[in-house]
Amino acid sequence: MNKAERIDDSTAQMMHAIGLQARAAAHVLALASPDSKNEALRAAADALREATPAILAANAKDVAAAKKAGRPAAFIDRLILDDARVAAVAGGLEEIAELADPVGTVLAEWTRPNGLKLQRVRVPLGVIGIIYESRPNVTADAGALALKSGNAAILRGGSESHESALAIHACLVKGLTAAGLPEAAIQLVPTPDRAAVGHMLAGLDGNIDVIVPRGGKSLVERVQKEARVPVFAHLEGICHTYVDRDAELDMAVAITLNAKMRRTGVCGATETLLVDKAAPTNYLPALVKALLEAGCEVRGDAAAQAADARVKPATDADWATEYLDAIIAVRSVDGVDAAIDHIARYGTQHTDAIITANTKTAEHFLAAVDSAVVVHNASTQFADGGEFGFGAEIGIATGKMHARGPVGVEQLTTFKYLVRGTGQTRPK
Amino acid sequence: MNKAERIDDSTAQMMHAIGLQARAAAHVLALASPDSKNEALRAAADALREATPAILAANAKDVAAAKKAGRPAAFIDRLILDDARVAAVAGGLEEIAELADPVGTVLAEWTRPNGLKLQRVRVPLGVIGIIYESRPNVTADAGALALKSGNAAILRGGSESHESALAIHACLVKGLTAAGLPEAAIQLVPTPDRAAVGHMLAGLDGNIDVIVPRGGKSLVERVQKEARVPVFAHLEGICHTYVDRDAELDMAVAITLNAKMRRTGVCGATETLLVDKAAPTNYLPALVKALLEAGCEVRGDAAAQAADARVKPATDADWATEYLDAIIAVRSVDGVDAAIDHIARYGTQHTDAIITANTKTAEHFLAAVDSAVVVHNASTQFADGGEFGFGAEIGIATGKMHARGPVGVEQLTTFKYLVRGTGQTRPK
Repeated sequence: MNKAERIDDSTAQMMHAIGLQARAAAHVLALASPDSKNEALRAAADALREATPAILAANAKDVAAAKKAGRPAAFIDRLILDDARVAAVAGGLEEIAELADPVGTVLAEWTRPNGLKLQRVRVPLGVIGIIYESRPNVTADAGALALKSGNAAILRGGSESHESALAIHACLVKGLTAAGLPEAAIQLVPTPDRAAVGHMLAGLDGNIDVIVPRGGKSLVERVQKEARVPVFAHLEGICHTYVDRDAELDMAVAITLNAKMRRTGVCGATETLLVDKAAPTNYLPALVKALLEAGCEVRGDAAAQAADARVKPATDADWATEYLDAIIAVRSVDGVDAAIDHIARYGTQHTDAIITANTKTAEHFLAAVDSAVVVHNASTQFADGGEFGFGAEIGIATGKMHARGPVGVEQLTTFKYLVRGTGQTRPK
Repeated sequence: MNKAERIDDSTAQMMHAIGLQARAAAHVLALASPDSKNEALRAAADALREATPAILAANAKDVAAAKKAGRPAAFIDRLILDDARVAAVAGGLEEIAELADPVGTVLAEWTRPNGLKLQRVRVPLGVIGIIYESRPNVTADAGALALKSGNAAILRGGSESHESALAIHACLVKGLTAAGLPEAAIQLVPTPDRAAVGHMLAGLDGNIDVIVPRGGKSLVERVQKEARVPVFAHLEGICHTYVDRDAELDMAVAITLNAKMRRTGVCGATETLLVDKAAPTNYLPALVKALLEAGCEVRGDAAAQAADARVKPATDADWATEYLDAIIAVRSVDGVDAAIDHIARYGTQHTDAIITANTKTAEHFLAAVDSAVVVHNASTQFADGGEFGFGAEIGIATGKMHARGPVGVEQLTTFKYLVRGTGQTRPK
């Protein structure tokens, strides 16, 4: 056995043990009271505040290493913690404690003619694996959402935020201990080697029920390709805003600007603007002008180019690109059905919006567009668990199975049927 | 290119075309009215009744071939159709037409402080691939359930029922045509070569959203192992009945007999009987005797063997075996928690029951057993979509994602969020 094999073998053993401990913790968490979970979250928040100096010291090591490695400024910004950010992380845990507990909710109940009483009740999924990159706050957010929903969490953070993650994780464990819950309810993979990810994607011998990747497209792509367990994720958010012939121009401009430019790096940002050919002739020029003047590069079809000389020509690739930047693709389409067809072809089933004062047109769009979130007369940037009122989200899913749209605590549960009888047997 | 490659290449092309047609049909079905889907189902039922002679002639070819191939009697029985069975299939379509339409149901709605109105509504999954063996009725049942829930279906039946499936499928197409729905809403793979299954498991280039296998363990095993799309299935149903110290003996005997012996070949049949050590001493002998006298082979631990000389010794393998036959494993356990532990270790998260007059013990069992269906004081053989009141089921799922327990028309849907605004933009 060479050295690489020995390392991989010891990683395999470590990950197997983590899986077993997580499953055992999950059995305890599934029956844990709402109060004990909330107590753990609040105690962890206190521990985070108390440990702020230690957390900042650990974070400083990560930041120094990242700077030494020549990582870009945006990367450093995501990585760096300060007093305010640690306080925000602690406050986030307390907010999650305030959310309604999803476990045990009766989703439906009915009685059969033979007297059997059936209930469909929410139960935790079990063990959630979270694979993330360099945002240290994910350690706390993801661990807390898993705990609130009665799931055990296995966190595998990026190597570049590992010191920060260790320091934050220690506070979560303090919270668990204070509430009498198993320490293994939230585990952090103690060494950030890449082999650990492979083991998680393989499902840890049946001890991971779902994987949530948090990070860039290459991470999500790898997870979606290799995972042998279900994944809650979105690979891309190529979101569309369609301005219909019956839109009010002021609203269309305000929403389009917000949908594209409020924050260009979020998955709910609009990447393509579709404008109805039958809209008043001043609409397309006004929309394009507003975007350009807000500092957005506009790539358009012939109509968009004709509307403003500053518009660059769009190619087919533009319709299929998630810019995550101050760039927008603009296309003129032949009415709502052409917009629906364009979205079916190029969209990623994330979030798409129609701007129109015509309710009939709006309802047709809402029904026909097959995306997790379909919006009428509002910004696509509302695609967010907080904005939906879910309190917090672990991510946004674009798959059709189980979780779709913002993934909050309810989406981290499944259900089971309880059947209560009085001695019923089934006839032949 | 040799002959095998040419065949595989032409299969690939055919399956790709089937996928594209299914996706196009799914877009139409998602917006189809309940009336048009029900009209298609009723017209298909009429067509089936009218075509009975042709269906029976086609079925006779399948049966003759199966007999010639020396298939066992149970296989022939599943394959064979007669007037009554065709009439039952037609009646089944009409029953599905009578079910409530799940599409468009508002699952939740709420208004945010900014005035955004959110709804979570049921929408079809899209395209469902059904891979089945020699039961010709699955062609109609599965196609109809997919249609009712607004999904396109791609059916790939076993080669041994292919002639029957073609004849039944022709009637479904007549129904679709009569209702003005796309013929491709229910497609039957026209040649039963095995390569078609591989293409379906790979997802037909994104044109299959979920696979439902209907058949024996080897089929389900292959599908679960190879599928690159979600699968609704159960591999095994190792179901347990636990008789608690506080059970009434008469009820315990009646339920156990029914749970094991009503039909031994169904997935909800009890395979292991667990008896509380603290139950009255006459319980274990009475339970074992009743099973033996009903013609059931009993394999037991030392306590069960001591209870009746006819009990054969059980090995560890027995706790992990789905007999699907008149055989039961019997084990004495140290109370409800030991029963819960046994089920966690050997169960398959399908259906497990407790018999007890003690409500507290029952509720603990219901909460702690992590199975799709958990039963108190009734037979595990109630694990069935019809018995649940779902009208019909396409199968039973033991996964935790999306569908769990009997998979009826509701479970063949997903949801999306509709967000209705009045011009809202998201603050920074």
